[in-house]
Amino acid sequence: MTQTRKMIVLLDSVKKLIRRDDYKHVANILRKVHAADIAYVLAHLMEAERLRLVQVLADTDLALAAESISELHTKPGGQLLAILPVELAAKILQQMDSDDAALFVADLPDDKGREILALMAAEESSSVRGLLRYEAETAGRIMNADVFCLNQQVTVGEAIQKLRERREAVSCFYIYVVNDAGQLLGVLSLKQLLFHPPEVTLRQIMRTNVISVHTETDQEEVARQVANYNLLAIPVVDDENRLVGIVTVDDVIDIIREEATEDIFYMAGVETDDHAYTSARLSIRKRVPWLAIYLGIGLFTAWVISLFRGALDQYVILALFMPMIGGMGGNAGTQTMTVAVRGMAMGELDAQTRSKFILKELRVGVVSGFLLGIIAGLIASGLEFVWTGHYKIGIIMFLAMWLNISLAAVWGSLIPQIFKWMKIDPALASGIFVATLNDIIGFSIFLGMGTLMLNTFGL
Amino acid sequence: MTQTRKMIVLLDSVKKLIRRDDYKHVANILRKVHAADIAYVLAHLMEAERLRLVQVLADTDLALAAESISELHTKPGGQLLAILPVELAAKILQQMDSDDAALFVADLPDDKGREILALMAAEESSSVRGLLRYEAETAGRIMNADVFCLNQQVTVGEAIQKLRERREAVSCFYIYVVNDAGQLLGVLSLKQLLFHPPEVTLRQIMRTNVISVHTETDQEEVARQVANYNLLAIPVVDDENRLVGIVTVDDVIDIIREEATEDIFYMAGVETDDHAYTSARLSIRKRVPWLAIYLGIGLFTAWVISLFRGALDQYVILALFMPMIGGMGGNAGTQTMTVAVRGMAMGELDAQTRSKFILKELRVGVVSGFLLGIIAGLIASGLEFVWTGHYKIGIIMFLAMWLNISLAAVWGSLIPQIFKWMKIDPALASGIFVATLNDIIGFSIFLGMGTLMLNTFGL
Repeated sequence: MTQTRKMIVLLDSVKKLIRRDDYKHVANILRKVHAADIAYVLAHLMEAERLRLVQVLADTDLALAAESISELHTKPGGQLLAILPVELAAKILQQMDSDDAALFVADLPDDKGREILALMAAEESSSVRGLLRYEAETAGRIMNADVFCLNQQVTVGEAIQKLRERREAVSCFYIYVVNDAGQLLGVLSLKQLLFHPPEVTLRQIMRTNVISVHTETDQEEVARQVANYNLLAIPVVDDENRLVGIVTVDDVIDIIREEATEDIFYMAGVETDDHAYTSARLSIRKRVPWLAIYLGIGLFTAWVISLFRGALDQYVILALFMPMIGGMGGNAGTQTMTVAVRGMAMGELDAQTRSKFILKELRVGVVSGFLLGIIAGLIASGLEFVWTGHYKIGIIMFLAMWLNISLAAVWGSLIPQIFKWMKIDPALASGIFVATLNDIIGFSIFLGMGTLMLNTFGL
Repeated sequence: MTQTRKMIVLLDSVKKLIRRDDYKHVANILRKVHAADIAYVLAHLMEAERLRLVQVLADTDLALAAESISELHTKPGGQLLAILPVELAAKILQQMDSDDAALFVADLPDDKGREILALMAAEESSSVRGLLRYEAETAGRIMNADVFCLNQQVTVGEAIQKLRERREAVSCFYIYVVNDAGQLLGVLSLKQLLFHPPEVTLRQIMRTNVISVHTETDQEEVARQVANYNLLAIPVVDDENRLVGIVTVDDVIDIIREEATEDIFYMAGVETDDHAYTSARLSIRKRVPWLAIYLGIGLFTAWVISLFRGALDQYVILALFMPMIGGMGGNAGTQTMTVAVRGMAMGELDAQTRSKFILKELRVGVVSGFLLGIIAGLIASGLEFVWTGHYKIGIIMFLAMWLNISLAAVWGSLIPQIFKWMKIDPALASGIFVATLNDIIGFSIFLGMGTLMLNTFGL
């Protein structure tokens, strides 16, 4: 709470000073705060103010400007870089860690990205280009290629010496040990350097059982390894087991937050780059296609219902309960689907547990469908009796609800796994498929049974 | 992928050996793997096998047994501890970090927890009891009270000496510097010890601008601070700014994963402890109450629709499109609500941006409702013409869809913020409220206009 308060105060003072064109004072204030706080300020300014502030910041402290933009989310950071003069953008990107710079460049329009890369110093631009060779969302793309590693023959004393020479090396959580060919052999912590006499070689004290990922490993898997094994950084190796980079825990946190957002957003029919701070225009462009898909499904559902117009015409009470039948199946299916999608993301639901999970969900569906079917049937019959003097909808309601919730458990648990098997993000399309199957089968069962009752008992 | 493969092979071999009662071999294999991998094996065994394995593991290497159970999710870990003999459970909990032990004890039935605490060594049980004094989900409850800190007068040379004496101290990411009263003054990294001559005092080289949290800070806020400032650990202080513990980044990752799960689960009407691996009985008990709430809403909706039975009786085509009207508003409302809930969790949506966000969402709703209303109206009129020769539902459809989606943007953006203001988790009840308001208002608009058309134009 105090931190939030601090941020509001900071933002207010910066805004006030900007209104007075007192950029010198602004720069003085910002020099004393964390880059993440500057990012917060940038995110809450108008575009013109933001632009001006970055320029002032870059004049005062280029490294801080670069760090602050790194701390912005990729989208707003990319948007900001895209409107900066290309020379300034190049200067700023040059100061960033190569992995952050690569993220932003990948997000820029192609020609702008090329132009900026051409203006950057050769060393920095080539390391960014190196990362961009790897596919998006893989360890190779997100890793920091600037990794501190030492040969196995190096002694503890020499290692401390080398660390001192590179005191700026930020991402130095562990010391990785390699052979002459650059292949990853072992790892040791900084603390271990303090515990051993200077003449011991790293080979003698390193831990050889290193957990590493391949450049092509998916970022979600990278995050899972770091989280499962409580690592501060994970080394990335190529086909020949050569150490080519590391992914640090702070990047992993961003990935976990993003992936969690991705799941929740996809299931709700929202694109991941549709945030609280995006423009109305962008949100509309991102959401209307999803709504159009739902509209199509709705029209298809209307067609399915139209097949039962005879029953609806004669027995209008069926119409009252239709939204409930559709909604209950949808809710039960969403429950199962959510547990399945998260279970797969957390590594709880895998090849080993698949069939057990589906059977369990089916049992959940059958039992809860039965319970809710009885309640719904009794209440519906009661209401019908009050309204019309009949009470026959109860049995239709009970059977339709029971079947519908049981089947929803089947769609809900199967569909995400089928998508995963097809190598499609399970969260992405599961919602739509579960809802569609459920509506179509649900209404068919309910209205079909209504028709049957009409024909059989002549209601 | 290779890691997943390794896990499956490990699990298979362990299962085979257990079937042969060859627990000696099992223990030998498990001694060589990471505790997180043992947790994976435990999670995938039958209860009897799991029980036996923990006993064997505890006999071989008690610390490894404790670490493996720490690596299990809280629920399955707690269930396992609850069925172990109390003496063994006490021995295992004693070996854990106090924060992990506190999590498990808090999850045990009260009497069982007390019994186990009484059997633990005085020092360990009192530190667990200390943590349990703080409320659940606060920094005080989740912190590790065993923090490495040094007095400001200590020199670099002495600090290295003290570190060597406590080489087992796991959570030593930073060195915190305190005064004689134990108040937090500064922080330095291990690396800095290597860079300074032994006679310098910590006071001279420490960074004084330390980001810390209070024992009562909510764990979600703790996680946000660690993530925003890219920390490896955050110190926890009491009312007098005395250093009482630290929360490390690996715990923060667990919190972020859990909070993300919580949001997504709540929005789908699932309880957070309802996982892929929970029993059918538990899942039923957790889900039926949510479904019952939705059932109640469905019945209320049916009552609202019944107010328009006259219109439905005469104009049955309204019934065909009802699920679509309800569904579209629901989907649009869910989109907005999801962006709002996540935005609040990520700190994007706050007091500063609130009104801007609501206005933006309203614009999104009005524009996309207009677009989709036109499409829906045209198609519905077309279908009606084919089916009945009339085409008047189009105008009802257009207006109802437009109004409904615009209003859904209002519920979707307001309701989560109202819940937050009422100090209720915004994800928890937003889904139900958005869906309810939407169904009731949506159907009323659609059917009300249908009635109006009937009365006015005598369709």
